[in-house]
Amino acid sequence: MNAKRTPTTPADKKKRIEEMNQRIEKLAEQLIKEIEKEENPHLDIPIRGSGNVFFDEKDKKIRLGDKVARRYLFNVAHARRFMQTLLVASYVKKDLLANDLTATLRDLYYAKKHTIQGTKEDTIDEQKESDIAIVDLEVALDSFRERLHLRAEPKGRMAGPMKVVDRVRDKVDTIDLERMGSGGWAVPSIVEQIEFKDVEIEYVLVAEKNAIFDRLNEDGYWKKNNCLLMTTAGQAARGARRLLQRISEELKVPIYCLTDSDPYGWYIYSTMKYGSMALAHESERLGCPDMKFLGMSTSDIEAYDLRAVTIKAKDVDIKRAKEMQAYDWFKAKEWQHEINLFLDKKLKAEIQALSSKNLQYISNNYLPEKIKAKDFLP
Amino acid sequence: MNAKRTPTTPADKKKRIEEMNQRIEKLAEQLIKEIEKEENPHLDIPIRGSGNVFFDEKDKKIRLGDKVARRYLFNVAHARRFMQTLLVASYVKKDLLANDLTATLRDLYYAKKHTIQGTKEDTIDEQKESDIAIVDLEVALDSFRERLHLRAEPKGRMAGPMKVVDRVRDKVDTIDLERMGSGGWAVPSIVEQIEFKDVEIEYVLVAEKNAIFDRLNEDGYWKKNNCLLMTTAGQAARGARRLLQRISEELKVPIYCLTDSDPYGWYIYSTMKYGSMALAHESERLGCPDMKFLGMSTSDIEAYDLRAVTIKAKDVDIKRAKEMQAYDWFKAKEWQHEINLFLDKKLKAEIQALSSKNLQYISNNYLPEKIKAKDFLP
Repeated sequence: MNAKRTPTTPADKKKRIEEMNQRIEKLAEQLIKEIEKEENPHLDIPIRGSGNVFFDEKDKKIRLGDKVARRYLFNVAHARRFMQTLLVASYVKKDLLANDLTATLRDLYYAKKHTIQGTKEDTIDEQKESDIAIVDLEVALDSFRERLHLRAEPKGRMAGPMKVVDRVRDKVDTIDLERMGSGGWAVPSIVEQIEFKDVEIEYVLVAEKNAIFDRLNEDGYWKKNNCLLMTTAGQAARGARRLLQRISEELKVPIYCLTDSDPYGWYIYSTMKYGSMALAHESERLGCPDMKFLGMSTSDIEAYDLRAVTIKAKDVDIKRAKEMQAYDWFKAKEWQHEINLFLDKKLKAEIQALSSKNLQYISNNYLPEKIKAKDFLP
Repeated sequence: MNAKRTPTTPADKKKRIEEMNQRIEKLAEQLIKEIEKEENPHLDIPIRGSGNVFFDEKDKKIRLGDKVARRYLFNVAHARRFMQTLLVASYVKKDLLANDLTATLRDLYYAKKHTIQGTKEDTIDEQKESDIAIVDLEVALDSFRERLHLRAEPKGRMAGPMKVVDRVRDKVDTIDLERMGSGGWAVPSIVEQIEFKDVEIEYVLVAEKNAIFDRLNEDGYWKKNNCLLMTTAGQAARGARRLLQRISEELKVPIYCLTDSDPYGWYIYSTMKYGSMALAHESERLGCPDMKFLGMSTSDIEAYDLRAVTIKAKDVDIKRAKEMQAYDWFKAKEWQHEINLFLDKKLKAEIQALSSKNLQYISNNYLPEKIKAKDFLP
């Protein structure tokens, strides 16, 4: 197989840590040189925000442009954030990478918050400040949070005919996702170290809702259809997004997404597929451009006779739909048609609306029919 | 061992379904008799709400009193809810129990919502109505939601030296909670069928936060200390509460609870331990009276020198603390002292505040010290 593989062994991890250490050291050495030459120490931080975000048509990813802000230590407007960025770098290097530990953004905030000696000034007032400094460091190092050993809130569960080999420091666990009972395996926040094994899946079905996971798991859907079942339990967490990307790229199986039929569902889908404007610097590793939107679509409402169990769209839904219609990543004619249909009918529908037919309709009819007919939105 | 055991085999499950069927049939037969005798059909529904809720000092559970409301079909104020309660009963019996399927409250709502023939009246307008009808049926049958095969939103993850045997219809999985990698096993919504196996835990540590689970899991805390580690990821879901109760009663191990030091943390704790006023009829199976509050307590703030990383209490925290101080289940002198201390200092602290010392302080110092000293609140 010619697929890309993420290096997952302990030796690979050591190498990743070493590389990150070097990048931080390089940054520090540049600053020391500037200090020795009595120059004003500076950091180059790629600019985030809509002015430097664009949609890469070829790779189908929301990306950061090449505009860079230069930040100086001796500049009253820059000094505080400069100091905070270096505090983050020091914590990542000395506390996390050096000990092979991971921490949350909140841990970092508590660890580095203190009153600067001889002043009444705190290094960090609110967590928002250290969070911004973390992203500054991520983009300055051309890296991402998980490589800095920073964890996000984990969310999501999965089950299906494959195994994952996961490592917690020296401990190695092989987890059979076919034997997870009614609960499923909880998707962790960092998934770089995970290896895929005994893969017998033909596709991945990722559902927005826990309730759909439970329904399909009870129906043995993933067993009958040889697929990996995942729920993101709402907007997908970073761990789930990265895992989907890795599965798509490394295992080369299609990923089908199942959300409610409404602008929020489209948004959940588009974030997993293309990345987001807020995290444009992360699309490279969090986007999943080959993902397809299985449903529920506005035309499903007619096709499956669900009008009696729809919900009237609110003004805020209409507004959101119009905004999304203008995004470059919704310009495909199928999506323009879908959004126009929504704006015309003004109806939303939940996946569970299918339960009005019968509880197992989704497993026995809706999903197999849609997948067989390849009735997807791009 | 003399501990209580929940019957978990498929035969036990069949018996449970049969028993629930009989209770629903008995209810239906009473109604048919009344109809045949041309009497006004009625349902007796135990009253919920604060007027019929009390704290059972002996069993340490928030309980429903014995007041009952009689609801009649031929009464304009009762007819709609009467009809809805029977719709729920029919769905539970004919769709769920008969097919050994489970559903969410939302599925039930969609399945039974329809326009009554020859009228413009819908059986159910909003899900709130069917949700209330479900609780009506639960208390009328002297049972609980999971026995009616209704699922709640699952939440929480766990890891530790024991196995669980879980069943999804005919499929039997043995899950080694010692081999769950960095994710953990996701706690399901219904746990009646779960069997405990190869139990080597000495206690359970249940943390309010995912971040604490990740920290302790990375530190191998549960391995070094022979405990089961669980996170509820916020307010505990029904599945997690029931599982904690079952572990406490059946495995006879202590359960220690770890939340932030604030009224919301106390509330999360008290709900797991005593049940809640809103679900007083469920305390019997969701309460965990032997649970202990390990921390974080207001006195920990001084004892562990955390003042610099505290958060000033807001008016709403003070108000909430005063309300809780008046509850019967917070009358223990230790809790009165704790709440007074909070009202005096007006400071909250998060568990992660311990990261200001060092990242592993919680695993290496705080938890072992507190547990060794048995420094708990009741």
